[in-house]
Amino acid sequence: MSRQLSLNAFLHDTGHHEASWRHPDSGAERVGDITWYQEIAQKAEAAKLDAVFLADGPVLWGTGHRPSNQFEPITLLTALAVVTERIGLIATASTSYYEPYNLARLFGSLDRISGGRAGWNIVTTQGDEAAANFGQAQAASPETRYERAQEFVDVITKLWDSWEDDAQVADRERGVFFDPDKVHALNHVGKHLSVKGAFNAPRIPQGRPVYVQAGSSNDGRNFAGRNAEAIFTAHQTLADAQAFYADIKAKAVGFGRSPESVRILPGISPFIGDTEAEAKALYDEFNRLTVPAYGLRQLENIAGVSLDHLELDEPVPAGIFGGAGNVLDNKRSRLQVVANIVERDRPTVRELLHRLAGGRGHFVVHGTPVQIADTIQEWFEGGAADGFNVLPPLYPQHLDAFTSKVVPILQDRGLFRTEYVGTTLREHYGLDRPESQYAVQHPAAVGSA
Amino acid sequence: MSRQLSLNAFLHDTGHHEASWRHPDSGAERVGDITWYQEIAQKAEAAKLDAVFLADGPVLWGTGHRPSNQFEPITLLTALAVVTERIGLIATASTSYYEPYNLARLFGSLDRISGGRAGWNIVTTQGDEAAANFGQAQAASPETRYERAQEFVDVITKLWDSWEDDAQVADRERGVFFDPDKVHALNHVGKHLSVKGAFNAPRIPQGRPVYVQAGSSNDGRNFAGRNAEAIFTAHQTLADAQAFYADIKAKAVGFGRSPESVRILPGISPFIGDTEAEAKALYDEFNRLTVPAYGLRQLENIAGVSLDHLELDEPVPAGIFGGAGNVLDNKRSRLQVVANIVERDRPTVRELLHRLAGGRGHFVVHGTPVQIADTIQEWFEGGAADGFNVLPPLYPQHLDAFTSKVVPILQDRGLFRTEYVGTTLREHYGLDRPESQYAVQHPAAVGSA
Repeated sequence: MSRQLSLNAFLHDTGHHEASWRHPDSGAERVGDITWYQEIAQKAEAAKLDAVFLADGPVLWGTGHRPSNQFEPITLLTALAVVTERIGLIATASTSYYEPYNLARLFGSLDRISGGRAGWNIVTTQGDEAAANFGQAQAASPETRYERAQEFVDVITKLWDSWEDDAQVADRERGVFFDPDKVHALNHVGKHLSVKGAFNAPRIPQGRPVYVQAGSSNDGRNFAGRNAEAIFTAHQTLADAQAFYADIKAKAVGFGRSPESVRILPGISPFIGDTEAEAKALYDEFNRLTVPAYGLRQLENIAGVSLDHLELDEPVPAGIFGGAGNVLDNKRSRLQVVANIVERDRPTVRELLHRLAGGRGHFVVHGTPVQIADTIQEWFEGGAADGFNVLPPLYPQHLDAFTSKVVPILQDRGLFRTEYVGTTLREHYGLDRPESQYAVQHPAAVGSA
Repeated sequence: MSRQLSLNAFLHDTGHHEASWRHPDSGAERVGDITWYQEIAQKAEAAKLDAVFLADGPVLWGTGHRPSNQFEPITLLTALAVVTERIGLIATASTSYYEPYNLARLFGSLDRISGGRAGWNIVTTQGDEAAANFGQAQAASPETRYERAQEFVDVITKLWDSWEDDAQVADRERGVFFDPDKVHALNHVGKHLSVKGAFNAPRIPQGRPVYVQAGSSNDGRNFAGRNAEAIFTAHQTLADAQAFYADIKAKAVGFGRSPESVRILPGISPFIGDTEAEAKALYDEFNRLTVPAYGLRQLENIAGVSLDHLELDEPVPAGIFGGAGNVLDNKRSRLQVVANIVERDRPTVRELLHRLAGGRGHFVVHGTPVQIADTIQEWFEGGAADGFNVLPPLYPQHLDAFTSKVVPILQDRGLFRTEYVGTTLREHYGLDRPESQYAVQHPAAVGSA
């Protein structure tokens, strides 16, 4: 089989466009109802997508102008796991404000309940607002956050590895349920974390959840090259995406990994019309629903400067977002995207807000199904993507449009599966199931899984 | 309607008897399969029980002689929520090793997914083994643990109260999804915790999950009298249960609460036979399956002394477990139960291990359905219980026996519901839905929920 695309549905209450909830057809009244998400996940599964994905932060986002997250992601995905059979389930969780033992249990349980479909989007959490919810006056520096994140990943990996695959024996005659010799303490004592272990449950179906990463800063890229098995990223142009793709694959190789061991999945937010004009009209319709004050606050939040003095229909002053040359963290990498748009396209403030309203810096496109499929194929075959994180502007209608109109084209071109081949997210992404590092250390003790 | 019993099914892999998994009819091979628990929850719901309950600790229990917890409780209950409609869902979670913001989100999400059926069994976690999984060389003292627990409950309550019930407006025309004036920061700065808030989701269906408590130590009783809406407790005799019941109700009144605002639910583990002889034979059959070495390790864990020198068929030496007069924490209150058995009944070591094998100190009974129902009624009407936490020795067979043989007798006697009246756990338990403390502070701002 030729190389295949990965396609995720990135969930986001009523849709990714910031004004989606105001649309007359939106499900604004249903986003606190779990069946809202269950129906969307079932639609994504019917279309054979690889996974659904949830962003998250342990803090109240926004100022009243759009829905908040009504569910915690791991419990939400558990509720989706029970009503689906194949689709992967990827939740974001913070290494900054969780304890590895607790998080290992939550994701481990999701992986077990779903039969091996869990993915963990590994993030560090920036911002003093979130820090203040966890007893800290301010967030740690990006360097410190990534240092803790690496230690966190090392520790949680050991927890997931601590039961060898054949540790559970359930021998009724001898009265032995598991073999303590195949259950390993970690005895980890490190700079940020100390965890004795062992984990308190048998090894999970995938061994470990799929490790996902979404940061594009320098720290983030190194972290991703070392740890990530899938990367969610935001680019506005093919050239930017190609440069990122090449850099990450090179970094992975630098860490002794194969280029195929990491899937790079840029975001794409498609407005789909049967004609170009229809698609453009749809795009314009959503932008007319935006609240400029909300968009300005979001942009100020990224930029860290006041923008109240700007006129909506004047061009964005050149250089207002700086060079962003020394990109340190996620916000600054997102700011780089914004600065590039300003430099390249010279939009008015209102135009810039519209550009960001669709996908918060992700690639927003409008076009016919064939045009969208062409773009996806161009990026996929042009060294820019192994697949895409799809951000429908309005759920479920724009997911339906993508799965019913664009996916069949990709399938006809042999680029996307028509049936699931495997049952786990690792299998969907073409990733190996890792062996326990403890079993590897003691090869004589390795049995069959 | 006359006063009604509450009845929970206390879940525990293959069953509560420590040797249940060795029984030829056990589901030992299925306890890592979520459908195992889903089927049990559906059976409990078909019998109109109030709730299912999960004990928990963030540490590996046991030494290989029985199954470990294969699931984390909140995710497990989420998977049960989706396949049930009415039954309450109570999970244990530790105030010692969670952050309130994370735990508020997890339980809040469970409450929302289940439509108002979540309960939180609030525990402090003892033991240096658990502490070492969270960067601590040893567990804090009971006094310090309960001090943190009280602050934790105060803070998490504020998080769940921080959105007033009418804060979410979803006004498409104005572009306002929620009213920031009805979303309150906590700005809590305390001895153990600092949490700014607000919570990042609208108020949950029950306002707060039902607060459950299970400690019987002095610290635990005061904590329960102040905070608990349901108490899970272990007693071997009616007299002990009556004394505990009276003490807790008095403590609740001392904190300005009504006696009805706290439900006291002792554990009962029933071996049910159509005749007394059949029930006794069933009890003996399970005890023959125990592994004495496992029971001794469990007992040593409670007692904190080595018991290797004891002969299995000699009487337990008097006084070996001390007076346990200064009961400080859960282990010591459980030790008091053991010491009382030894003093009262003078069992051999083997007999004592059998007594503990059934319910780890909970009330183990064997008898006919009428005898079991009589005991339940006697405790319920004798000022010892508002209901029971039922611990079937073997799942699902012994739950089936209880629901098909004992529950109908209780229903015929008018002591237990034949249909659910409400939809939330609060309604099953006859508890009020609390108002947000912030709405109470600003009565002018209170709207309808």
